Amino acid sequence: MECLFCKIAQGAMPSKKVYEDKDTIAFLDINPANPGHTLIVPKKHAENIMDADDASLEKAIVVAKKIARMVAEKTGAEGVNVLQNNGKRAGQIVNHVHFHVIPRFENDSMVISYPRMHANEAELDEVVLRLTKSKNPIDDAIMREMGA
Amino acid sequence: MECLFCKIAQGAMPSKKVYEDKDTIAFLDINPANPGHTLIVPKKHAENIMDADDASLEKAIVVAKKIARMVAEKTGAEGVNVLQNNGKRAGQIVNHVHFHVIPRFENDSMVISYPRMHANEAELDEVVLRLTKSKNPIDDAIMREMGA
Repeated sequence: MECLFCKIAQGAMPSKKVYEDKDTIAFLDINPANPGHTLIVPKKHAENIMDADDASLEKAIVVAKKIARMVAEKTGAEGVNVLQNNGKRAGQIVNHVHFHVIPRFENDSMVISYPRMHANEAELDEVVLRLTKSKNPIDDAIMREMGA
Repeated sequence: MECLFCKIAQGAMPSKKVYEDKDTIAFLDINPANPGHTLIVPKKHAENIMDADDASLEKAIVVAKKIARMVAEKTGAEGVNVLQNNGKRAGQIVNHVHFHVIPRFENDSMVISYPRMHANEAELDEVVLRLTKSKNPIDDAIMREMGA
């Protein structure tokens, strides 16, 4: 069992814990963007949000809400980002699904930026079609399950 | 009812919808970071994650997982960010709680960066204490509820 967050969840590695219950643990990021930067981790291992089971995610997002409230209140933050990265290309460092709760302050050094592209109607319609068009019966079943 | 996302959720404003059920709607961001950039929105109005009810968040994060899978598969993205901004300081533009699902590609123009500060043990311990120390009996009750 080599996963760092599994070790922390099982108490085999120390962490700066701010919350724990049966299914979820929250502890400070040791390389914080701002003081109060906390990671919310489902104890059950999954590499990313795509692989995580629904119950783990449901529990984690409710803990993320509680931690966001706590961090905002106790640090006086003017904003809070909840960030969940999947894959190295998206900035994921530890391959165990987790949510960052990051308090934000005036003139802090965190940057979240992207060109807000102007997509025209036809481009957007093409993307909707690409995302929702099924390629096989399994996709059809998924889409039906999704109510789409 | 002036909230843009309430109007979209109620069908009073058009959107480039990729998913909808009774509680949650997902549609393309009209100013995408990358093609496939989708917003997941609980239909029930709340300004941010701190104000949202637990059930809305539980449903939204499960939809976010499904959309992340769909977007990754259909766009061939190498990574996916799930981002949820609370407050203007955190980049929130529409004041109705929502999750961004953003596919990531090599050499795209999205930047999520922060100085990974090195916090020493004493600093981290101080933050844990600040976050978890109660100031009044209501906080105590919250912490007990949280199992801390």
